[in-house]
Order: sequence, then C-alpha cells, then structure tokens
Amino acid sequence: MRLRVHNLAVSLDGFAAGEGQSLEAPFGHAGHRLMGWYLPTRTFVSMTGHGAVAHDAGTTGVDDAFAAASWQGIGAEIMGRRKFGPQTGPWQDHEWQGWWGDEPPFRTPVVVLTHHLRPDLVLGGTTFTFRDAEPAEALRIAADLAGGLDVRLGGGASSIRPFLAAGLVDHAHVVVVPIVLGRGVRLWDGLEGLEELYSIESTPSPSGVVHLVLTRRPPA
Amino acid sequence: MRLRVHNLAVSLDGFAAGEGQSLEAPFGHAGHRLMGWYLPTRTFVSMTGHGAVAHDAGTTGVDDAFAAASWQGIGAEIMGRRKFGPQTGPWQDHEWQGWWGDEPPFRTPVVVLTHHLRPDLVLGGTTFTFRDAEPAEALRIAADLAGGLDVRLGGGASSIRPFLAAGLVDHAHVVVVPIVLGRGVRLWDGLEGLEELYSIESTPSPSGVVHLVLTRRPPA
Repeated sequence: MRLRVHNLAVSLDGFAAGEGQSLEAPFGHAGHRLMGWYLPTRTFVSMTGHGAVAHDAGTTGVDDAFAAASWQGIGAEIMGRRKFGPQTGPWQDHEWQGWWGDEPPFRTPVVVLTHHLRPDLVLGGTTFTFRDAEPAEALRIAADLAGGLDVRLGGGASSIRPFLAAGLVDHAHVVVVPIVLGRGVRLWDGLEGLEELYSIESTPSPSGVVHLVLTRRPPA
Repeated sequence: MRLRVHNLAVSLDGFAAGEGQSLEAPFGHAGHRLMGWYLPTRTFVSMTGHGAVAHDAGTTGVDDAFAAASWQGIGAEIMGRRKFGPQTGPWQDHEWQGWWGDEPPFRTPVVVLTHHLRPDLVLGGTTFTFRDAEPAEALRIAADLAGGLDVRLGGGASSIRPFLAAGLVDHAHVVVVPIVLGRGVRLWDGLEGLEELYSIESTPSPSGVVHLVLTRRPPA
C-alpha cells in the first residue's frame, strides 16, 4: 500500500492556492490558472461529461497521462476539510453535502480530516467519513478502508504538508505552473531538505507546466 | 541591445540564496547545491582551469549549453554589490578587490550597484564601476559601456527583482533546482503576474534541474 499525492499544482513561487478561497473560488485569486493543464485533459473532460462530441474529447498527451494515473489503483482518499467544502468551524448544517454534488468522482471511502466530527455521508459511490486524526492515524484509518489498494492524499496543500514532513507520502505528483501568484497557500513551507527523502524527476509538457514526480527513497 | 539574466538558480520553494551569506558561503546555508548543475559544466571547468586532463573536461549537455550561452554576446554586466563581495555599508578598505581575484571572468565593464561609491577598479580585463542608480538608469549606463552588445544582469536575486518588476529584462534563464531550502533570499517576491510580461519555456536536464527561459512578450 502506498500513500500517493496527485495533480498538486503550484505556481513558480510555490503557492498551491491563491488568497481568498471561497465557495465560488476554491483556488482564491488564482482562479482556474493552477488547473489550466488539467481541465482540458480527456480524463477530466470524460469525468465531467463535457466534450461529448468525439473530436472534442480532451487532450491525450503527458498532462492526460498524469491525470489518468491519479485514478488508478486507489482504494481510499484522505482529504482536508477544505477540499470537502469551504465551511470552517462547527458544522452549521449537516444537510450541506460539500461541493462535489450527488455523484462525487472518488467512488471510494474518503476520510475528511476535521476537528468537527459529523456522521458518515454517502453520496453515490463515495462515503465521506469525518475524523480528527494526526497524519499517521489518518493513514491507518484510510488504509483499513482501501481494501489493499493505495490511498490518495487529496489536498489541499495545508493538509498534505504534515504528511510530507512526517515522511508518510510514498509518491507525489506536483505540477509546476509557470505563473507567479504572489500570495496564497504555500506548499513547501516547513519542508526544508525534502530532497533528502525523495528523488525528484521532472517532465515538461507542451502545455507549459512541468510535472515533478517525488518518489520516496528507500531507507538508507 | 537586450538585458539578459543567466544561470539564476532557485530552489523549488523559490530561494535564490540561502540564509547566512558570507565571504566563505556566498549562497549561505544552500552551500553549492544551487550551482551543482553549473560547476561540472565544460564552460565552468575550462574557465577555472580545473579538469586540465581532456577526458575530465566537464559536461557538455544541456546544462553546459545554457552555461555557455551566458557568455555569448555580452558587452557589459550589471551586478548587485553582494555579487562583488560580501561587505555591506561604507567601504572599509578600497584595497579589498571583491572576491573575483586578479582576473575576474567578466572581461567587460561591470556596473556594481551600491549606495557607497568608490573609484573604478581595473582587474585584468574587467573594469568595475560603482554606481548608485535605479534600474532604468543603471541599464543606460551599462548599455553605453557595452559597445552595442547585450548587457548581462548578474544578480543576486535582490538586484534582479526590481529590473524584472520594471519590465527591463528581455531574457531570463532561471534554473529550478529540485531542493527545498526553506529560508533565504526569495526570487519571486513582488513579481505577481510576471507571466503576463513573459512567455516561459521549460527544459529538464538529466542532472535533475529544469531550465526556464523567460522571454519578454512583444508589446500588445
């Protein structure tokens, strides 16, 4: 079982989201710019039902290869509360079902990290389970739910950082987008020397982004 | 005449130098890690006289191509005081000739930006001229000295940033090194939206770095 991060986009200055995140703007002032490589891929287009016409069914190059890989062999996901929805603090309303709609794309158990528990939420093929857990414990919970498959660590950056710092992530796909955001949520803070734990491979895409693959080094 | 930046290395988290820069540690706690792609190149090795034996004369791949390009067609350089030497404040000693030795590699006029003027300094084929000038004026001074060739903007990052912000840089070669430094001198601060002024091309090297080329877009 591996813990995997995928499609984690950062600006040249290391921001994984802009300032001012909200329901309408999940990436804050970054808008769609961090995901501009992902949205046109065949993987995303076919998930969302856009591009039903065959000749407009999305890109199939290296960006799509990485997008597709993120869905392979995953038995459970861990996500921060912010990826479930923009609310903070105690839940105002258990009727609020996050921003993934009636059929979220995960179709596995999803462990949502939050200090504010609430009952499991079943939406289509996805079950959201809310837990107040440190990274290692969250990973144990998700691994139990994953049925022998890998666990995806879904984000956002603030949720991923402590897992990286604890050395729990086996594989991380980070996408460097050639923009300078200036402000927002920094991915790399507190991760000085990360390269000692991970080998890092870089592949550029014609779309302008650079795909980084961080692979945890075997113990010395 | 173009204003060009070359070999400007930054960590994944956007630091162009570490913390604690000094005479012995020009890049602070980063040590040689930011220049690990450059030091083995044939261009650098042949400049420094290391590797006199032919079969050990340095690498000749994409890292060397970029290193070599930085020396082509340059008629003058602009550098920050920190690239001349680690002193700060009023000059203690005009005998101190910077850390480039008796034959600095520039072999052109060099405009050193400093609030503390001192007489021109001729070392081998290089003349250092000390000026207290804003970016646009510094560029005019250097262009006059460049004899129709390009001007190289040599660094460090704190000196380069205001030229980028002012839109004066025509070409910038930035090298993203797969390390997380955590602290030091940030390159991208204050440059939000830089991608609107520059097209950005990415080329990975087998050494692990990614070469970015920022080319100023023609006026709209």
